[in-house]
Amino acid sequence: MRGLPRPRRNLNAVQRILVRGGAQEAPESVVWIGRGLLESGASLLASPSGRFLLVSAPAARFAADVLRAALGGRLLLDLEIDDREEAKTLGSVSSIADAALAAGVRRDDALVAVGGGVTTDVAGFAAAVLLRGVVWNAVPTTTAAMADAAVGGKTGVDHPLGKNLLGAFHPPRAILVDPATLATLPERDYRSGLVEGFKAAWVADALLAEQAERALPRILARDEDALLEFVTGAVRVKAEIVSSDPKEEGRRRLLNFGHTLGHAFEAAGGFRDLRHGEAVAWGIAAALTISLERTGLSAGEAQRVRGVLSRLGPFPEPKRDPSVLAAYLARDKKASASGRAGILLEAIGRARVEPSVTEEEWLAAASDPEGAAGE
Amino acid sequence: MRGLPRPRRNLNAVQRILVRGGAQEAPESVVWIGRGLLESGASLLASPSGRFLLVSAPAARFAADVLRAALGGRLLLDLEIDDREEAKTLGSVSSIADAALAAGVRRDDALVAVGGGVTTDVAGFAAAVLLRGVVWNAVPTTTAAMADAAVGGKTGVDHPLGKNLLGAFHPPRAILVDPATLATLPERDYRSGLVEGFKAAWVADALLAEQAERALPRILARDEDALLEFVTGAVRVKAEIVSSDPKEEGRRRLLNFGHTLGHAFEAAGGFRDLRHGEAVAWGIAAALTISLERTGLSAGEAQRVRGVLSRLGPFPEPKRDPSVLAAYLARDKKASASGRAGILLEAIGRARVEPSVTEEEWLAAASDPEGAAGE
Repeated sequence: MRGLPRPRRNLNAVQRILVRGGAQEAPESVVWIGRGLLESGASLLASPSGRFLLVSAPAARFAADVLRAALGGRLLLDLEIDDREEAKTLGSVSSIADAALAAGVRRDDALVAVGGGVTTDVAGFAAAVLLRGVVWNAVPTTTAAMADAAVGGKTGVDHPLGKNLLGAFHPPRAILVDPATLATLPERDYRSGLVEGFKAAWVADALLAEQAERALPRILARDEDALLEFVTGAVRVKAEIVSSDPKEEGRRRLLNFGHTLGHAFEAAGGFRDLRHGEAVAWGIAAALTISLERTGLSAGEAQRVRGVLSRLGPFPEPKRDPSVLAAYLARDKKASASGRAGILLEAIGRARVEPSVTEEEWLAAASDPEGAAGE
Repeated sequence: MRGLPRPRRNLNAVQRILVRGGAQEAPESVVWIGRGLLESGASLLASPSGRFLLVSAPAARFAADVLRAALGGRLLLDLEIDDREEAKTLGSVSSIADAALAAGVRRDDALVAVGGGVTTDVAGFAAAVLLRGVVWNAVPTTTAAMADAAVGGKTGVDHPLGKNLLGAFHPPRAILVDPATLATLPERDYRSGLVEGFKAAWVADALLAEQAERALPRILARDEDALLEFVTGAVRVKAEIVSSDPKEEGRRRLLNFGHTLGHAFEAAGGFRDLRHGEAVAWGIAAALTISLERTGLSAGEAQRVRGVLSRLGPFPEPKRDPSVLAAYLARDKKASASGRAGILLEAIGRARVEPSVTEEEWLAAASDPEGAAGE
């Protein structure tokens, strides 16, 4: 992404971004971003049979209603699911599968997941295993899902031992991003979801980071132009990285910046105390501390990142108890027998995979109040 | 496969057959077939980390013990599962995942499934969803799993509404076929499992069908040479077909010969009354009846197929109640909005996908006692 000319986009036009999936049966995802997409959504959603199974979150009723009207008689199932992180379980996947099978789902039917990251993760996973895989579409209705969760093909559920420990790579065929779906999103969710968008910019796109930092007041004021431009930029970064490494065997790991400790903070809070984006913000703050020591990241740039996290917050304090965090770190699914790699920032717009950050370093950074976002 | 020169194989040598998987992360499966493979198995099983999670069936204790000894300190988990068809559920997958996560499984560890088709299907599905996919290996200990279930990448579990309705395409990296594992296999399982091997021959390899028919007395007498030659032939047919169509979008459907009604018979018997191979035998018998009407299959060849099924049996009678079977047919996951294709035989060694066999034709064939295997 770096160095490409970046024309001023026509924000009234619909943006279309391709994500290559790496799987034979899902050659690519198409992300559509624009105003009013929801109304015309029926024509952009993919279903080989033309029939759809709607899986939606309670908070996404507005978006779901628009799609219900648009899809009309082509709706085979209309299921509302519990989309709290506590309900992101194999049991929820099973419930969706039960309902879909009872409704007579066939291999050429398609799911549509309407909601935040939990909904797209759970419904996407259900699509991955139903009849060994049916097509699905994502209609993200939170900033976190728009900028991150719905893009890239990772689906899954949590396990008592950790987050996203069961799942599949199963990219949605189409992703519809319409800012109208954010109208009723609570402020805390709106702001914490932006963390993932900034994360994408920080690891791979200095210009986007700079633009978004400048536009932050307008983004926080929910200016749709500013938000659309930011989300489009974040999705372009993610699409480019995911397309180059769909199964996270190399470069895609950069997108886990802030997630090693982030997942531990989130688990330590019982998946209730912190929003995902908030936990990632604390994880990024800790990764900055380690980066300062290891990568030559400048104090000024670290401070700029902390400054943005601070303006997105204030976020509730995480549990920093090392013995609790250590247990969750040990179960990090990115760990391998050869050690736990960490994602560190070299500069704004440039991250790297550091092969062997020790558990002690993580825990020290996690418990350092100096490393706190917003300090 | 047809028309290839087929040298008399050295049956003391280990056979090595490749199955291309079509997935980026699992480029191919290697099927090893030979005597005494189990002892040397540890070197043939694949694990990026060198560590293994052993998942075995109670009836496969002999094979599991040999592997336990061979893998020794590299065993991260040693789990025996209920391998009855009634236990082929998402709950079993969840139990395997729980145990694996509690044992500290990492992305570069590998599962080894030791048992029949239920064990390889369930453990393979667990491998597919654990940490979004870990490597696995199959050590089939039944004729059905050797000739069919363990090869080809289909994994999954049953649902109250039908068989294999949840699952994933996730090919094992290595498959070890050692006839010593069959020593304690009950006669009914040994014989019914051979049906899938003959099925492969009937749909795609006339010469194999003829050889196996001639060798049947020795195969039924558990002559290891005869069995190894038959299993090798069946695996070659399956490997060739699966490699050309890993996700069953075309030619692989031929391997579903006998399975449309077979699955319905199996479900109608509550997954207890009939072995999978027995249900498939009844399904093949019914498909022959339709083939006689539709494809020009000769009465003589139909009779030859029925004759083999009869010698493999006698099999318990299925429930033929059309109203019960109709409900299961309606939920066949191979059905699409455009109709239910049937696999019919044109001649021994040549099957075809018939686009629109009606439910009435299936039910008429199913209820026809003339179509019964062994009549």
